[in-house]
Amino acid sequence: MRGTSSHSAGWPFDDRGVAYGDGLFETVLLRDGQPQLWEAHLARLARGCEMLAIPLPAQAALEQPLAAAGQGLQVLKLMLTRGSGGRGYQLPADPEPRLRWCLVPFVPKEACWMRGVHIRHCALRLGIQPALAGLKHLNRLESVLARAEWSTPEVAEGVLCDTEGRLVEATSMNLFWLRHGHLETPRLDRCGVAGTLRDALRQRVSLQEVERGPEVLEEAEAVWLGNSVQGLWPVARLDDAQGRELKRWNIRHRHRPLQAEAHALLGYPLFP
Amino acid sequence: MRGTSSHSAGWPFDDRGVAYGDGLFETVLLRDGQPQLWEAHLARLARGCEMLAIPLPAQAALEQPLAAAGQGLQVLKLMLTRGSGGRGYQLPADPEPRLRWCLVPFVPKEACWMRGVHIRHCALRLGIQPALAGLKHLNRLESVLARAEWSTPEVAEGVLCDTEGRLVEATSMNLFWLRHGHLETPRLDRCGVAGTLRDALRQRVSLQEVERGPEVLEEAEAVWLGNSVQGLWPVARLDDAQGRELKRWNIRHRHRPLQAEAHALLGYPLFP
Repeated sequence: MRGTSSHSAGWPFDDRGVAYGDGLFETVLLRDGQPQLWEAHLARLARGCEMLAIPLPAQAALEQPLAAAGQGLQVLKLMLTRGSGGRGYQLPADPEPRLRWCLVPFVPKEACWMRGVHIRHCALRLGIQPALAGLKHLNRLESVLARAEWSTPEVAEGVLCDTEGRLVEATSMNLFWLRHGHLETPRLDRCGVAGTLRDALRQRVSLQEVERGPEVLEEAEAVWLGNSVQGLWPVARLDDAQGRELKRWNIRHRHRPLQAEAHALLGYPLFP
Repeated sequence: MRGTSSHSAGWPFDDRGVAYGDGLFETVLLRDGQPQLWEAHLARLARGCEMLAIPLPAQAALEQPLAAAGQGLQVLKLMLTRGSGGRGYQLPADPEPRLRWCLVPFVPKEACWMRGVHIRHCALRLGIQPALAGLKHLNRLESVLARAEWSTPEVAEGVLCDTEGRLVEATSMNLFWLRHGHLETPRLDRCGVAGTLRDALRQRVSLQEVERGPEVLEEAEAVWLGNSVQGLWPVARLDDAQGRELKRWNIRHRHRPLQAEAHALLGYPLFP
């Protein structure tokens, strides 16, 4: 089945996932059919269901798409909505959540691991919403607008601050940096998506959650982006929101320990 | 066709409407098949398409659902997504927006027009996001969470402030009040949905957009909620977010002019 894509059925007209973005998703790396960081994905989904009051499906239902998985690397996208029903925004009295999924082949970007990536600040600021902070929910228009700020293929990701100027995340990855010898990552209690790789790294290395403005990146000895599908990318260059260079880092031979931990968690090689 | 519901097809698995809430909607009152405030709905949709860079369908395509309309009152829900495609959040190079709709019979709540409604403050605060402010987009989780704060049927709507404490809107209606003899409504340049009834009223009466905290409601001589489907509801009672009464208004025989304008715009009687 390597190299083939498959997905479940589509969505009824009245699904609350499309009407309101009333749901959650997970994007999971599969290696020969085995989900990587699966416990962390299940835990985030459970936390999202609790915060949104969506009944959590049984683990067996969540694992059903794995039966369709093939050999090699694939990405499983799991989507869970509150289903249909309710009057307007009001919750349905007896919700029947709807689970859908797709499986696609995946090839990691080894060049990004090795040579690092070029990123830029986004002009868009993330709205502050503690009731949704950390969740991988389906209200992602801010991410869509931020990603639309550049089209040059050299720029891998954008950097996002919240409306009060605190650094939060990159457009589809979490941010990490080394500063005065300490590993830090932004707190995500007001907005942003708490990545499963970030969660797993916090359990393995000393990685402090901090509140900092965007200037901390320029002060950092090293910066990385990471998520549970791509692994960890060192940042080689940072631009401002107009595309003007702010800083470059020499990433060769430096700061391998964090990348080693991340890649051990995902089964990726450190030196491909 | 009175009393029957109909809707278009559902959504493919990969529609960006469900993946990211990447789209817009309009909820339109039809009277004997004639859309009320249609120009205002088209204008808001066009503004949303411009802000989100979604190609606006031709007016003929947007009016196609009207061919399925029947006699009497119905509500048309029009949904427009960016369609499928793109890599992750990135916009598809050649977007094919997807238009879907449903038609349902509608009976206005005459008792709300006549006797007024009971509302309460919500604990949830709306995140500030000028890039989406005013739009009727599909990222509505905040509205869902706010509406879930109460379940008593006596309470018609919740009142929402932003994270900086400014009054914004009600959960599915706009807010209006009379203060020192002047009609006011919150500015909606940071968050909230700019209703088409609100837009139409601003063109007909002296209605000032202001920045105020929630306490302004208790100081008001009269308060109303309005949208383009329900018309204008006088507020008879306001509670705090714990359901404790803050204020009552005697709505009988008072402040009819604003309601008269609103109901003239929608073809509703003032004294049903």
